[in-house]
Amino acid sequence: MEDKNTAFIYKTLTFWDKLNEKEQALILSNMISVKYRHGENIHSGENDCIGIILIKSGELRTYILSEDGREITLYRLVKGDICILSASCILKNITFDVHIDAEHDSEVLLINSNVFQQICNENIYAENFSYKTIADRFSDVMWAMQQILFMSFDKRLATFLLDELSKNDSDSILLTHEQIAKYMGSAREVVSRMLKYFENEGLVELSRGGVKVIDKKSLRKLT
Amino acid sequence: MEDKNTAFIYKTLTFWDKLNEKEQALILSNMISVKYRHGENIHSGENDCIGIILIKSGELRTYILSEDGREITLYRLVKGDICILSASCILKNITFDVHIDAEHDSEVLLINSNVFQQICNENIYAENFSYKTIADRFSDVMWAMQQILFMSFDKRLATFLLDELSKNDSDSILLTHEQIAKYMGSAREVVSRMLKYFENEGLVELSRGGVKVIDKKSLRKLT
Repeated sequence: MEDKNTAFIYKTLTFWDKLNEKEQALILSNMISVKYRHGENIHSGENDCIGIILIKSGELRTYILSEDGREITLYRLVKGDICILSASCILKNITFDVHIDAEHDSEVLLINSNVFQQICNENIYAENFSYKTIADRFSDVMWAMQQILFMSFDKRLATFLLDELSKNDSDSILLTHEQIAKYMGSAREVVSRMLKYFENEGLVELSRGGVKVIDKKSLRKLT
Repeated sequence: MEDKNTAFIYKTLTFWDKLNEKEQALILSNMISVKYRHGENIHSGENDCIGIILIKSGELRTYILSEDGREITLYRLVKGDICILSASCILKNITFDVHIDAEHDSEVLLINSNVFQQICNENIYAENFSYKTIADRFSDVMWAMQQILFMSFDKRLATFLLDELSKNDSDSILLTHEQIAKYMGSAREVVSRMLKYFENEGLVELSRGGVKVIDKKSLRKLT
Protein backbone atom coordinates (compact mmCIF):
# COMPACT_ATOMS: atom_id res chain seq x y z
CA MET A 1 0.00 0.00 0.00
CA GLU A 2 1.75 3.17 -1.12
CA ASP A 3 2.03 6.35 0.99
CA LYS A 4 -0.70 8.27 -0.79
CA ASN A 5 -3.27 5.66 0.15
CA THR A 6 -2.05 5.57 3.72
CA ALA A 7 -2.50 9.32 4.06
CA PHE A 8 -6.01 8.99 2.63
CA ILE A 9 -6.86 6.26 5.16
CA TYR A 10 -5.63 8.32 8.13
CA LYS A 11 -7.88 11.15 7.06
CA THR A 12 -10.94 9.07 6.26
CA LEU A 13 -10.92 6.51 9.07
CA THR A 14 -11.18 9.00 11.93
CA PHE A 15 -10.75 6.26 14.55
CA TRP A 16 -7.30 5.37 13.17
CA ASP A 17 -5.32 6.64 16.19
CA LYS A 18 -7.53 4.55 18.50
CA LEU A 19 -6.31 1.36 16.83
CA ASN A 20 -3.27 -0.47 18.13
CA GLU A 21 -0.38 -1.24 15.78
CA LYS A 22 -1.58 -4.77 15.14
CA GLU A 23 -5.05 -3.55 14.16
CA GLN A 24 -3.62 -0.87 11.89
CA ALA A 25 -1.38 -3.41 10.19
CA LEU A 26 -4.32 -5.78 9.76
CA ILE A 27 -6.34 -3.13 7.93
CA LEU A 28 -3.42 -2.01 5.76
CA SER A 29 -2.63 -5.55 4.69
CA ASN A 30 -6.28 -6.33 3.90
CA MET A 31 -7.15 -3.23 1.96
CA ILE A 32 -7.11 -3.28 -1.81
CA SER A 33 -7.48 -0.68 -4.53
CA VAL A 34 -10.39 -1.36 -6.85
CA LYS A 35 -11.60 0.41 -9.98
CA TYR A 36 -15.24 0.28 -10.96
CA ARG A 37 -16.47 1.17 -14.42
CA HIS A 38 -19.36 3.58 -14.98
CA GLY A 39 -22.59 1.61 -14.51
CA GLU A 40 -21.02 -1.35 -12.78
CA ASN A 41 -22.99 -2.95 -9.94
CA ILE A 42 -20.99 -3.08 -6.71
CA HIS A 43 -23.45 -4.46 -4.22
CA SER A 44 -26.81 -6.20 -4.66
CA GLY A 45 -29.05 -6.64 -1.66
CA GLU A 46 -28.26 -9.55 0.59
CA ASN A 47 -26.26 -11.43 -2.02
CA ASP A 48 -22.91 -9.97 -1.09
CA CYS A 49 -21.07 -8.18 1.66
CA ILE A 50 -17.82 -7.05 0.13
CA GLY A 51 -16.71 -4.67 2.85
CA ILE A 52 -16.19 -1.01 3.69
CA ILE A 53 -15.49 1.20 0.66
CA LEU A 54 -13.49 4.44 0.88
CA ILE A 55 -14.08 6.50 -2.25
CA LYS A 56 -10.96 8.05 -3.80
CA SER A 57 -12.64 9.35 -6.94
CA GLY A 58 -15.85 8.94 -8.91
CA GLU A 59 -19.35 8.46 -7.56
CA LEU A 60 -21.37 5.60 -6.09
CA ARG A 61 -25.18 5.58 -6.09
CA THR A 62 -27.17 3.70 -3.45
CA TYR A 63 -30.76 2.78 -4.27
CA ILE A 64 -33.61 0.45 -3.41
CA LEU A 65 -35.31 -1.72 -6.00
CA SER A 66 -38.96 -2.78 -6.09
CA GLU A 67 -40.14 -6.21 -7.18
CA ASP A 68 -41.24 -4.74 -10.49
CA GLY A 69 -37.83 -3.16 -11.11
CA ARG A 70 -38.47 0.42 -10.01
CA GLU A 71 -35.40 2.13 -8.53
CA ILE A 72 -35.37 4.84 -5.92
CA THR A 73 -32.10 6.64 -5.30
CA LEU A 74 -31.30 7.06 -1.60
CA TYR A 75 -28.03 9.00 -1.84
CA ARG A 76 -24.81 9.40 -3.80
CA LEU A 77 -21.30 9.19 -2.37
CA VAL A 78 -18.25 10.97 -3.74
CA LYS A 79 -14.52 11.43 -2.98
CA GLY A 80 -13.75 11.13 0.72
CA ASP A 81 -17.08 9.49 1.56
CA ILE A 82 -17.40 6.05 3.12
CA CYS A 83 -19.77 3.44 1.80
CA ILE A 84 -20.82 1.33 4.77
CA LEU A 85 -23.95 -0.48 3.55
CA SER A 86 -21.73 -2.57 1.27
CA ALA A 87 -20.70 -4.21 4.56
CA SER A 88 -24.15 -4.23 6.17
CA CYS A 89 -23.81 -7.94 7.03
CA ILE A 90 -21.42 -7.01 9.83
CA LEU A 91 -23.86 -4.49 11.38
CA LYS A 92 -26.49 -6.46 13.28
CA ASN A 93 -28.84 -3.49 13.63
CA ILE A 94 -29.16 -3.01 9.86
CA THR A 95 -31.92 -5.29 8.57
CA PHE A 96 -32.60 -3.88 5.09
CA ASP A 97 -30.93 -4.30 1.75
CA VAL A 98 -29.81 -1.79 -0.82
CA HIS A 99 -28.11 -1.82 -4.21
CA ILE A 100 -24.98 0.15 -5.03
CA ASP A 101 -23.74 1.05 -8.53
CA ALA A 102 -20.76 3.04 -9.76
CA GLU A 103 -22.35 6.11 -11.30
CA HIS A 104 -19.07 7.25 -12.87
CA ASP A 105 -15.74 5.49 -13.28
CA SER A 106 -14.59 5.23 -9.66
CA GLU A 107 -11.47 4.37 -7.74
CA VAL A 108 -11.89 3.08 -4.21
CA LEU A 109 -10.12 1.39 -1.34
CA LEU A 110 -11.92 -1.70 -0.11
CA ILE A 111 -11.46 -3.17 3.35
CA ASN A 112 -12.53 -6.80 3.52
CA SER A 113 -15.71 -7.46 5.58
CA ASN A 114 -14.24 -10.22 7.76
CA VAL A 115 -11.26 -8.10 8.69
CA PHE A 116 -13.39 -5.05 9.41
CA GLN A 117 -15.76 -7.16 11.49
CA GLN A 118 -12.84 -8.47 13.54
CA ILE A 119 -11.63 -4.91 14.15
CA CYS A 120 -15.14 -3.77 15.13
CA ASN A 121 -15.48 -6.66 17.56
CA GLU A 122 -12.15 -5.83 19.18
CA ASN A 123 -12.27 -2.08 19.09
CA ILE A 124 -15.31 -0.10 20.23
CA TYR A 125 -14.06 3.04 18.41
CA ALA A 126 -14.11 1.24 15.07
CA GLU A 127 -17.64 -0.06 15.75
CA ASN A 128 -18.78 3.38 16.84
CA PHE A 129 -17.32 4.90 13.66
CA SER A 130 -19.39 2.45 11.59
CA TYR A 131 -22.61 3.30 13.37
CA LYS A 132 -21.93 7.03 13.14
CA THR A 133 -21.48 6.61 9.39
CA ILE A 134 -24.81 4.77 9.35
CA ALA A 135 -26.41 7.78 11.08
CA ASP A 136 -25.04 10.03 8.29
CA ARG A 137 -26.64 7.78 5.71
CA PHE A 138 -29.90 7.74 7.72
CA SER A 139 -29.91 11.55 7.48
CA ASP A 140 -29.31 11.31 3.71
CA VAL A 141 -32.21 8.88 3.33
CA MET A 142 -34.57 11.06 5.36
CA TRP A 143 -33.72 13.96 3.08
CA ALA A 144 -34.45 11.84 0.00
CA MET A 145 -37.69 10.56 1.53
CA GLN A 146 -38.96 14.06 2.22
CA GLN A 147 -38.06 15.06 -1.34
CA ILE A 148 -39.93 12.11 -2.78
CA LEU A 149 -42.98 12.18 -0.57
CA PHE A 150 -43.55 15.85 0.14
CA MET A 151 -42.10 18.06 -2.54
CA SER A 152 -44.27 18.88 -5.50
CA PHE A 153 -42.82 17.50 -8.69
CA ASP A 154 -41.77 20.81 -10.28
CA LYS A 155 -39.65 21.59 -7.22
CA ARG A 156 -38.16 18.12 -7.23
CA LEU A 157 -37.27 18.22 -10.90
CA ALA A 158 -35.75 21.70 -10.61
CA THR A 159 -33.67 20.54 -7.64
CA PHE A 160 -32.54 17.48 -9.55
CA LEU A 161 -31.48 19.51 -12.61
CA LEU A 162 -29.56 22.05 -10.49
CA ASP A 163 -27.83 19.27 -8.57
CA GLU A 164 -26.76 17.63 -11.81
CA LEU A 165 -25.43 20.94 -13.16
CA SER A 166 -23.31 21.65 -10.12
CA LYS A 167 -22.01 18.08 -10.09
CA ASN A 168 -20.88 18.22 -13.72
CA ASP A 169 -19.88 21.89 -13.80
CA SER A 170 -21.75 22.39 -17.08
CA ASP A 171 -25.07 23.86 -18.22
CA SER A 172 -26.17 20.66 -19.93
CA ILE A 173 -27.45 17.44 -18.45
CA LEU A 174 -26.76 14.47 -20.68
CA LEU A 175 -29.52 12.19 -19.43
CA THR A 176 -32.63 10.95 -21.21
CA HIS A 177 -36.08 11.55 -19.72
CA GLU A 178 -36.17 7.84 -18.97
CA GLN A 179 -32.93 8.07 -16.97
CA ILE A 180 -34.07 11.16 -15.09
CA ALA A 181 -37.31 9.38 -14.19
CA LYS A 182 -35.37 6.39 -12.95
CA TYR A 183 -33.12 8.50 -10.73
CA MET A 184 -36.12 10.38 -9.35
CA GLY A 185 -38.27 7.31 -8.76
CA SER A 186 -40.87 8.70 -11.14
CA ALA A 187 -42.34 7.83 -14.54
CA ARG A 188 -40.93 8.95 -17.89
CA GLU A 189 -44.25 10.54 -18.87
CA VAL A 190 -44.28 12.67 -15.74
CA VAL A 191 -40.70 13.85 -16.32
CA SER A 192 -41.32 14.60 -20.02
CA ARG A 193 -44.44 16.58 -19.25
CA MET A 194 -42.70 18.71 -16.65
CA LEU A 195 -39.61 19.25 -18.83
CA LYS A 196 -41.89 20.37 -21.67
CA TYR A 197 -43.50 22.78 -19.22
CA PHE A 198 -40.07 24.07 -18.17
CA GLU A 199 -39.19 24.53 -21.85
CA ASN A 200 -42.34 26.54 -22.50
CA GLU A 201 -41.45 28.69 -19.50
CA GLY A 202 -38.02 29.38 -21.02
CA LEU A 203 -36.14 27.57 -18.26
CA VAL A 204 -34.58 24.78 -20.32
CA GLU A 205 -34.00 23.67 -23.88
CA LEU A 206 -34.64 20.04 -24.75
CA SER A 207 -32.58 18.08 -27.24
CA ARG A 208 -32.37 14.45 -28.20
CA GLY A 209 -29.82 13.35 -25.63
CA GLY A 210 -30.32 15.81 -22.83
CA VAL A 211 -31.49 18.98 -21.17
CA LYS A 212 -29.79 22.37 -21.41
CA VAL A 213 -30.57 24.81 -18.61
CA ILE A 214 -30.94 28.36 -19.95
CA ASP A 215 -32.45 30.16 -16.95
CA LYS A 216 -30.76 28.86 -13.84
CA LYS A 217 -32.02 31.73 -11.70
CA SER A 218 -35.71 31.07 -12.36
CA LEU A 219 -35.14 27.35 -11.93
CA ARG A 220 -33.60 28.02 -8.55
CA LYS A 221 -36.61 30.12 -7.55
CA LEU A 222 -38.77 27.05 -7.97
CA THR A 223 -36.83 25.05 -5.38
CA MET B 1 -36.02 5.99 41.85
CA GLU B 2 -37.60 2.78 43.11
CA ASP B 3 -36.15 -0.71 42.50
CA LYS B 4 -38.55 -1.65 39.74
CA ASN B 5 -37.37 1.26 37.58
CA THR B 6 -33.75 0.46 38.30
CA ALA B 7 -34.23 -3.12 37.11
CA PHE B 8 -35.90 -1.80 33.96
CA ILE B 9 -32.96 0.52 33.30
CA TYR B 10 -30.37 -2.23 33.73
CA LYS B 11 -32.20 -4.30 31.15
CA THR B 12 -32.86 -1.51 28.64
CA LEU B 13 -29.59 0.42 28.76
CA THR B 14 -27.34 -2.42 27.68
CA PHE B 15 -24.18 -0.35 28.25
CA TRP B 16 -25.00 0.01 31.96
CA ASP B 17 -22.13 -2.16 33.23
CA LYS B 18 -19.66 -0.12 31.15
CA LEU B 19 -20.51 3.00 33.17
CA ASN B 20 -18.58 3.88 36.29
CA GLU B 21 -20.44 4.44 39.57
CA LYS B 22 -20.45 8.20 39.15
CA GLU B 23 -21.98 7.94 35.68
CA GLN B 24 -24.60 5.47 36.87
CA ALA B 25 -25.53 7.75 39.77
CA LEU B 26 -25.75 10.72 37.40
CA ILE B 27 -28.28 8.92 35.19
CA LEU B 28 -30.34 7.62 38.11
CA SER B 29 -30.59 11.06 39.69
CA ASN B 30 -31.55 12.72 36.39
CA MET B 31 -34.16 10.28 35.23
CA ILE B 32 -37.84 10.99 35.76
CA SER B 33 -41.06 9.07 35.30
CA VAL B 34 -43.46 10.77 32.89
CA LYS B 35 -46.99 9.89 31.80
CA TYR B 36 -48.27 10.97 28.39
CA ARG B 37 -51.96 10.99 27.48
CA HIS B 38 -53.26 9.42 24.28
CA GLY B 39 -52.71 11.92 21.44
CA GLU B 40 -50.26 14.12 23.33
CA ASN B 41 -47.34 15.54 21.35
CA ILE B 42 -43.97 14.64 22.90
CA HIS B 43 -41.48 16.02 20.43
CA SER B 44 -41.86 18.51 17.57
CA GLY B 45 -39.04 18.86 15.08
CA GLU B 46 -36.18 21.08 16.10
CA ASN B 47 -38.15 22.94 18.74
CA ASP B 48 -37.26 20.64 21.59
CA CYS B 49 -34.79 18.03 22.66
CA ILE B 50 -36.20 16.53 25.81
CA GLY B 51 -33.94 13.50 26.07
CA ILE B 52 -33.82 9.73 25.77
CA ILE B 53 -37.15 8.01 26.45
CA LEU B 54 -37.41 4.44 27.75
CA ILE B 55 -40.94 3.16 27.20
CA LYS B 56 -42.47 1.29 30.15
CA SER B 57 -45.97 0.97 28.67
CA GLY B 58 -48.12 2.39 25.89
CA GLU B 59 -47.03 3.35 22.38
CA LEU B 60 -45.19 6.28 20.77
CA ARG B 61 -45.54 7.11 17.08
CA THR B 62 -42.76 8.88 15.15
CA TYR B 63 -43.69 10.68 11.94
CA ILE B 64 -42.64 13.38 9.51
CA LEU B 65 -44.86 16.31 8.62
CA SER B 66 -45.03 18.15 5.30
CA GLU B 67 -45.46 21.91 4.99
CA ASP B 68 -49.09 21.37 4.04
CA GLY B 69 -49.74 19.20 7.10
CA ARG B 70 -49.45 15.72 5.62
CA GLU B 71 -48.11 13.11 8.08
CA ILE B 72 -46.12 10.00 7.26
CA THR B 73 -45.62 7.47 10.03
CA LEU B 74 -42.04 6.20 10.25
CA TYR B 75 -42.38 3.68 13.10
CA ARG B 76 -44.06 2.95 16.40
CA LEU B 77 -42.31 2.13 19.67
CA VAL B 78 -43.69 0.02 22.51
CA LYS B 79 -42.70 -1.36 25.93
CA GLY B 80 -38.95 -1.89 26.25
CA ASP B 81 -38.11 0.24 23.20
CA ILE B 82 -35.91 3.32 23.34
CA CYS B 83 -36.90 6.56 21.71
CA ILE B 84 -33.66 8.27 20.69
CA LEU B 85 -34.79 10.89 18.15
CA SER B 86 -36.36 12.85 21.02
CA ALA B 87 -32.73 13.60 21.88
CA SER B 88 -31.47 14.05 18.32
CA CYS B 89 -29.84 17.39 19.22
CA ILE B 90 -27.08 15.49 20.99
CA LEU B 91 -26.30 13.32 17.94
CA LYS B 92 -24.28 15.39 15.47
CA ASN B 93 -24.79 12.96 12.61
CA ILE B 94 -28.59 13.26 12.72
CA THR B 95 -29.62 16.27 10.64
CA PHE B 96 -33.35 15.71 10.18
CA ASP B 97 -36.37 16.39 12.34
CA VAL B 98 -39.30 14.22 13.29
CA HIS B 99 -42.43 14.49 15.39
CA ILE B 100 -43.38 12.10 18.16
CA ASP B 101 -46.85 11.61 19.66
CA ALA B 102 -48.19 9.27 22.34
CA GLU B 103 -50.46 6.95 20.38
CA HIS B 104 -51.91 5.46 23.57
CA ASP B 105 -51.64 6.51 27.21
CA SER B 106 -47.97 5.84 27.91
CA GLU B 107 -45.61 5.64 30.86
CA VAL B 108 -41.95 6.34 30.23
CA LEU B 109 -38.63 7.06 31.89
CA LEU B 110 -36.96 10.18 30.57
CA ILE B 111 -33.24 10.88 30.82
CA ASN B 112 -32.42 14.55 30.44
CA SER B 113 -30.59 15.50 27.20
CA ASN B 114 -27.76 17.42 28.84
CA VAL B 115 -27.00 14.60 31.22
CA PHE B 116 -27.13 12.01 28.47
CA GLN B 117 -24.89 14.14 26.29
CA GLN B 118 -22.35 14.41 29.09
CA ILE B 119 -22.38 10.62 29.52
CA CYS B 120 -21.99 10.09 25.75
CA ASN B 121 -19.06 12.50 25.63
CA GLU B 122 -17.33 10.71 28.51
CA ASN B 123 -18.19 7.15 27.70
CA ILE B 124 -17.80 5.66 24.23
CA TYR B 125 -20.08 2.72 25.11
CA ALA B 126 -22.98 5.07 25.83
CA GLU B 127 -22.38 6.92 22.57
CA ASN B 128 -22.14 3.67 20.66
CA PHE B 129 -25.41 2.48 22.24
CA SER B 130 -27.12 5.65 20.96
CA TYR B 131 -25.87 5.18 17.42
CA LYS B 132 -26.81 1.49 17.43
CA THR B 133 -30.32 2.49 18.45
CA ILE B 134 -30.29 4.95 15.56
CA ALA B 135 -29.40 2.08 13.22
CA ASP B 136 -32.46 0.16 14.50
CA ARG B 137 -34.66 3.14 13.69
CA PHE B 138 -33.00 3.48 10.27
CA SER B 139 -34.04 -0.11 9.57
CA ASP B 140 -37.60 0.69 10.68
CA VAL B 141 -37.73 3.72 8.39
CA MET B 142 -36.44 1.77 5.39
CA TRP B 143 -39.22 -0.75 5.93
CA ALA B 144 -41.84 2.01 6.03
CA MET B 145 -40.33 3.66 2.96
CA GLN B 146 -40.52 0.47 0.92
CA GLN B 147 -44.14 0.00 1.98
CA ILE B 148 -45.04 3.53 0.97
CA LEU B 149 -43.11 3.74 -2.28
CA PHE B 150 -43.34 0.24 -3.63
CA MET B 151 -46.72 -1.11 -2.62
CA SER B 152 -48.63 -1.58 -5.83
CA PHE B 153 -51.16 1.12 -6.51
CA ASP B 154 -54.27 -1.10 -6.34
CA LYS B 155 -53.35 -2.03 -2.77
CA ARG B 156 -52.72 1.57 -1.82
CA LEU B 157 -55.97 2.81 -3.33
CA ALA B 158 -57.98 0.02 -1.70
CA THR B 159 -56.39 0.87 1.65
CA PHE B 160 -57.17 4.55 1.14
CA LEU B 161 -60.83 3.89 0.30
CA LEU B 162 -61.32 1.59 3.29
CA ASP B 163 -59.66 4.11 5.60
CA GLU B 164 -61.97 6.85 4.32
CA LEU B 165 -65.03 4.62 4.84
CA SER B 166 -64.15 3.82 8.43
CA LYS B 167 -63.36 7.48 9.10
CA ASN B 168 -66.75 8.63 7.86
CA ASP B 169 -68.79 5.60 8.93
CA SER B 170 -70.50 5.50 5.52
CA ASP B 171 -70.25 3.47 2.32
CA SER B 172 -69.61 6.50 0.13
CA ILE B 173 -66.52 8.64 -0.26
CA LEU B 174 -67.34 12.18 -1.31
CA LEU B 175 -64.05 13.07 -2.93
CA THR B 176 -63.21 13.75 -6.56
CA HIS B 177 -60.51 11.71 -8.32
CA GLU B 178 -58.39 14.85 -8.26
CA GLN B 179 -58.71 15.08 -4.46
CA ILE B 180 -57.97 11.40 -3.95
CA ALA B 181 -54.86 11.76 -6.13
CA LYS B 182 -53.73 14.71 -4.05
CA TYR B 183 -54.17 12.86 -0.77
CA MET B 184 -52.30 9.86 -2.13
CA GLY B 185 -49.49 11.85 -3.74
CA SER B 186 -50.42 10.45 -7.15
CA ALA B 187 -51.84 11.73 -10.46
CA ARG B 188 -55.55 12.07 -11.28
CA GLU B 189 -55.17 9.90 -14.39
CA VAL B 190 -53.69 7.07 -12.34
CA VAL B 191 -56.49 7.24 -9.76
CA SER B 192 -59.22 7.39 -12.42
CA ARG B 193 -57.81 4.43 -14.27
CA MET B 194 -57.66 2.28 -11.17
CA LEU B 195 -61.14 3.33 -9.98
CA LYS B 196 -62.51 2.39 -13.42
CA TYR B 197 -60.82 -0.99 -13.00
CA PHE B 198 -62.37 -1.38 -9.54
CA GLU B 199 -65.77 -0.52 -11.03
CA ASN B 200 -65.40 -3.15 -13.75
CA GLU B 201 -64.53 -5.67 -11.05
CA GLY B 202 -67.74 -4.79 -9.19
CA LEU B 203 -65.93 -3.33 -6.19
CA VAL B 204 -67.16 0.27 -6.43
CA GLU B 205 -69.67 2.45 -8.24
CA LEU B 206 -68.50 5.80 -9.58
CA SER B 207 -70.65 8.89 -9.61
CA ARG B 208 -70.01 12.55 -10.29
CA GLY B 209 -69.00 13.61 -6.81
CA GLY B 210 -67.61 10.44 -5.34
CA VAL B 211 -67.04 6.73 -4.98
CA LYS B 212 -69.51 4.24 -3.49
CA VAL B 213 -68.00 1.02 -2.20
CA ILE B 214 -70.24 -1.95 -2.99
CA ASP B 215 -67.95 -4.89 -2.21
CA LYS B 216 -66.00 -4.06 0.90
CA LYS B 217 -64.91 -7.65 1.45
CA SER B 218 -63.18 -8.00 -1.93
CA LEU B 219 -61.64 -4.57 -1.55
CA ARG B 220 -60.18 -5.63 1.78
CA LYS B 221 -58.73 -8.77 0.17
CA LEU B 222 -56.66 -6.51 -2.08
CA THR B 223 -54.92 -4.81 0.85
